[in-house]
Formats: sequence, C-alpha cells, structure tokens
Amino acid sequence: MSLEILKEKVGYHVIKQLLEGKPPEFELKVRSAKNAIYDEQQRILLLGDMTQKRRFNNLGELRAFSQMILIARAIYEAKKEIGYTTQRDIYYNALETIKGTNIDTLKDQKESNAIITDLEVYTGLLREEMGVIAEERGVVAGKLKLRGYSRGEEQIVDCEKGLTGQLIPANIHEVEIFDLDAELVLVVEKGGIFKSLRELMIDRKLNCILVSGHGQPDRASRRLVHRLNKEFGLPVYILTDCDPWGFRIFSVYKIGSRNLAFESIKLATPDAKFIGVYPSDIEKLKFDRGIIQATPRDIRTAQMLMKLPWFSDKRWQEELSLFIREKKKVEINILSQKGFRYLADEYIPNRIKEFQ
Amino acid sequence: MSLEILKEKVGYHVIKQLLEGKPPEFELKVRSAKNAIYDEQQRILLLGDMTQKRRFNNLGELRAFSQMILIARAIYEAKKEIGYTTQRDIYYNALETIKGTNIDTLKDQKESNAIITDLEVYTGLLREEMGVIAEERGVVAGKLKLRGYSRGEEQIVDCEKGLTGQLIPANIHEVEIFDLDAELVLVVEKGGIFKSLRELMIDRKLNCILVSGHGQPDRASRRLVHRLNKEFGLPVYILTDCDPWGFRIFSVYKIGSRNLAFESIKLATPDAKFIGVYPSDIEKLKFDRGIIQATPRDIRTAQMLMKLPWFSDKRWQEELSLFIREKKKVEINILSQKGFRYLADEYIPNRIKEFQ
Repeated sequence: MSLEILKEKVGYHVIKQLLEGKPPEFELKVRSAKNAIYDEQQRILLLGDMTQKRRFNNLGELRAFSQMILIARAIYEAKKEIGYTTQRDIYYNALETIKGTNIDTLKDQKESNAIITDLEVYTGLLREEMGVIAEERGVVAGKLKLRGYSRGEEQIVDCEKGLTGQLIPANIHEVEIFDLDAELVLVVEKGGIFKSLRELMIDRKLNCILVSGHGQPDRASRRLVHRLNKEFGLPVYILTDCDPWGFRIFSVYKIGSRNLAFESIKLATPDAKFIGVYPSDIEKLKFDRGIIQATPRDIRTAQMLMKLPWFSDKRWQEELSLFIREKKKVEINILSQKGFRYLADEYIPNRIKEFQ
Repeated sequence: MSLEILKEKVGYHVIKQLLEGKPPEFELKVRSAKNAIYDEQQRILLLGDMTQKRRFNNLGELRAFSQMILIARAIYEAKKEIGYTTQRDIYYNALETIKGTNIDTLKDQKESNAIITDLEVYTGLLREEMGVIAEERGVVAGKLKLRGYSRGEEQIVDCEKGLTGQLIPANIHEVEIFDLDAELVLVVEKGGIFKSLRELMIDRKLNCILVSGHGQPDRASRRLVHRLNKEFGLPVYILTDCDPWGFRIFSVYKIGSRNLAFESIKLATPDAKFIGVYPSDIEKLKFDRGIIQATPRDIRTAQMLMKLPWFSDKRWQEELSLFIREKKKVEINILSQKGFRYLADEYIPNRIKEFQ
C-alpha cells in the first residue's frame, strides 16, 4: 500500500506530467517553523497552508527536485527488497557523484534526512510506513499485549513479562494493542526511573501502563502514548525533571514539535497532564541539597515557554514564573532523599489524585 | 549474599577495627590507568598490585573513607528495601550537608560514581550484584533463551521472538542462558545495523547470536558476549565502523577498558575477532563516495592504538598504518552502496569464513 502511494505520487506523477508535455514539478507543504501553527481547536501543532514547489526546470529547485526522486527510489527499493532500512543507509545508497561532473547528489546525511521528511509531508506517509525505521529506544511495561509482524511471522509481546521493559517497536503504527487492562498511562522521562518503578510493579499498584522514551521521546514512544489515549481513552500523566528540558519533553508528548508538525495528528496527546517535578515542589518538599543552579539559557528557555499558548494556563504560568525567579533545577531522582520508595508510594499517586 | 559481603567488608570491618582500638581504614587496589596492566597470559587488562589506604584518622583520606561508608549504606538500604537502584539515586540519597558545617558529603555525581566503583574493587562485587543497575541499551536476537527473576517472578525471554531485539538485562550475570543453538556470536556496533540484520534473519542464516551494544557497549552487553564465549565456546566476531571509535569498541569487547580493568575477568572476550570494516576495504571495495576525512585526533588515536599489545599482530599493524596514511574513515552503512543485502549476504559471511 505505502509502496503504491510512493510509486503513484513520485514516479507516475512525474511521468504523467512529462507525457502531458509539462515540465515536472512537486508541490508540498512548507514544513519550516514559520508554517507550524498551533491549532486551538485540536490543541496540537499543525502545518499551515504555505506550499512550495520543486520544479525540474528551475535552477534553484532542480537539486531538491532530483533528490526527491533519488531518495524515493532508494526507499522504494529498500522496502521492496528487504522491507526495512535506515535513514543512514538511504543516505549512502542515494549518494552519487553525477557523471561527468564533480557534483554529489547529497552533501551530507542532513540533506537526505530532510528529503525523507519532505517525502513524508508530500505523500502523507510516516517514514516508518515507508520502511525507514530507527533503532528502538522507548520502553513499556504493564498489562497490555502487542501483536504484529516481524521476521516474516506473527509476534506477540506481553508487556507484563520479561526481565526488562519491552522495547516499543518502531513500527508501532501497524501493531495491534490488545488484552489491555489499565486505567491510566504513566510516562517518565528517564530510563532509570522506569526501571525502578517497573521493578516496584507500579503498573499493578496504580493499574497503569508505564512508558519511558529515555529523554526526548522517539516517534514510536509518542505514537504509543497517543494511541493509548485515543483508542483506549486512558488519561496520560507525565513525570520529568524540573528543568526546561523536562518541560519541553512534556510539551512534545502533548502538542508535538515544530519541525515535525505534520505528524502531530498521529503523535501528540493534547490531554496529557504534567505531574512534576514542579518548581514549587522544591520549597514544598524542603529540598536543600542536590539543587542545580539554572543557567541563563535555562531562564531564557523558560521565558520563551511562558509565551506558548499551551503553557498559558494559570498553573503553568505560576510555575514557570517561580522557576525564572528562583533559578533552581532539580532532577526526579532528588525524591530518593525522602526514601527509595517515596516516588512510587507517595509522590506519583498523590500527584495523579490532584488531577482526578 | 551480596548484602552479606557488603555488611561484612564495610560495616563489620570498621566496627571490628574500632573494637580492637585501631583507627579504622580500608585498603583497596588503586584503579587508575597507571595500575591497569595487560596480562599477556589471559590477554586482558587487569588491575596491578598497587594499593591505597582510606584512613579515618588521616585528613587527606577522611573524605573518601567517610564516603565509602555513606555510599555503602545507601546501596545496602536500597538493595534491602526495593532490590534495585541507580547510581543517580544513590548520589541524591547520600548527599548531605554535614551538620554544623557547610560541607557537602558529595561534590557531584562523579564523586559518588567513583566511590561505587571503589566499592566494586574493594568488595569484589559487580555493582549490578549490589543492585545498582543502569538502564538497558544492548540488544540480542537469536536462538537462545534467558531465565531470571524480575518483579518477584521467574521470567523467560525467548530471543528468537518479539517485534524488536530483546534488551540485554542489566542483571545478566544472574540470568540462566538455555536452549542455545548457535555456532557463533556476531556483534555489531550499531543499533540500526542490528535491526536490519535481525529482520533479514541473519541469526538463522549464519546460525549465530546477534548482539549490539549500541555504540560503546554497556557492561551487560559485554558480559553476555563474554558468557557466550566462555560458557558455550562460541567464537565472537565484531563488526564496527572503520574509525578509531570503532576500533576502540572492538578493543573494549576483547580486552576490557582501563578504567574498569578490575572487571575484565568477567566482561572481556580475548578471543574476539574483528571482521571489519577494515581500512583496506575502502580500496578493495572501490568506495569513492561517502568517505569521511579522518581528523588529526583520529590519527593520533590510531597511532596510540598501534602501540597497544593487543593490536600488535601484523594484520592490525598494517590496517592501522594504512588508516594513518590514507586518513579515510567509513561507516558500516557505506556497504549499502553495493545493494541493501550486500552486508548480510556477502560481506559478513565472507569475512567470517576468512577466520575459519
């Protein structure tokens, strides 16, 4: 199916224009930050209406025009031949020196990655649907099972079992989620925290699905959280460090990111709630050791976050103001000063209750 | 068991000395690079005989002496109370301002990490055996199963199954490996390469166990490879990028690392073979696109590697000389220029055959 779309929208499209005697061109939405618009209704970042052309008979657009065909061909062949490939393999495969010139088809992998993203926007396919996959980073634990295909066979993954969390497969978009029995999704920023909470069986105690994207989440982790919220109606609670990096991670799960705005609709979870660590926790929980001084850059980032529409509610404005005033960062792990069980037994359940 | 050793060698040890009227002290092996010695017989890096004291009644040693007790206590409590913890949680838990002073027990997490490593050297326990675990990064696929305990239950992991590779559990040292049916271990540097090779079922085609540590391998990945070699007699072949970083990764699997020399005996695989990518492959395979210029630092690193005893054989000396002369780096992924199946169908099987 995705191969058909790729063939149709790239190959046939060009041939058709040529047969009609027109110089071939592609038209696609501009995916720069300028064209990323916060949709108040859906409460996610979306691409606006600005479009751009890639014309064969325009010297300024020829390079990008050719790269789209070249990369589409490499993706098509990889998907057809072995089913999966990586952005890096696509780069090397499509890299050529044009005969009779010293011009390379690609300057570096950044250029081919950008074209792969262009092809996503242009075809409406996720790159994973085109077989371009990344190594997995996110993990999940709790009462749910995954059914999908890998190595030519049906595979079932029981996320309650195992010696570790289960990796969230890169092709989560085509995986069936079943046998789910949970009331909420608990997302934690850090792998270490995930691991302790999993061992403490917080998924059973809070009847939750536990997820970590190991820092800035990959697309598969965001897609899983999105699906658990959309398809199963589970509320989503997110725990990060108390610093701008943590606030951003929350923001990416909730709203999407500016440079991948075209995917928000498949990846974002606008109803996700932030359960801390809050700037106000520092005083409330009387932490005096292990507090990190915020840098001027942290403060500037927090000031920028305050202006974003999805941080406009009173609670966030107060917390961000406090952060800017006090200039104090803390990590989730600071809670271990209250005892190794405090996070699982007190902090998380209490914070979730505040939202219920 | 590990808790007993910790109690015995730290707590009781100090009390005993006090009861005997002696000022308490710890004596442990120095674990600096200076005391890391290449053992020609065992062909791994080991700690030499240099020792150091940590004495209570010596102003220069008092800080480290106290930190050892403080960290040991935090590890003991975490292990007893919840079974597992992380280095970061230990840092926060042991961080205190000493009463009546403005002196913190720890400057930063580097200091507590160093003490955790000291405790490993001092007690002879791996930190994982003391319950101090890291999030998992390495992955494995192939015909083997793992049996261990997690979440208070026996867990069995079938590494032939799943939608992704199976994470190599941090507590691999206490996991039983069974139902193994393979002739060799294939270690690849990169997660992306692991993922494609797994989908192509190279484990079935070459009857191998496929492992990736995602770059510089964590201890669990090295320990698994070590065990597959030692306990099951499987030869180990390692595939990395053709650059000093890749050569180092090979070296760490094979010999161990200088700053963790005390663990080599449990983690290193001296018989591991390097199957490329070789500097000589660049010319042999006629790559002319996608070659990266080596930096002066790369060249200096290669010159340093040439002096190491475990790179002293003719083949390595020739390859490293060639690298220094030609100043060319390539990534494994460049092989996709020969077709997306070339790595799995030609390069790897042929290179392994050269060693058989």
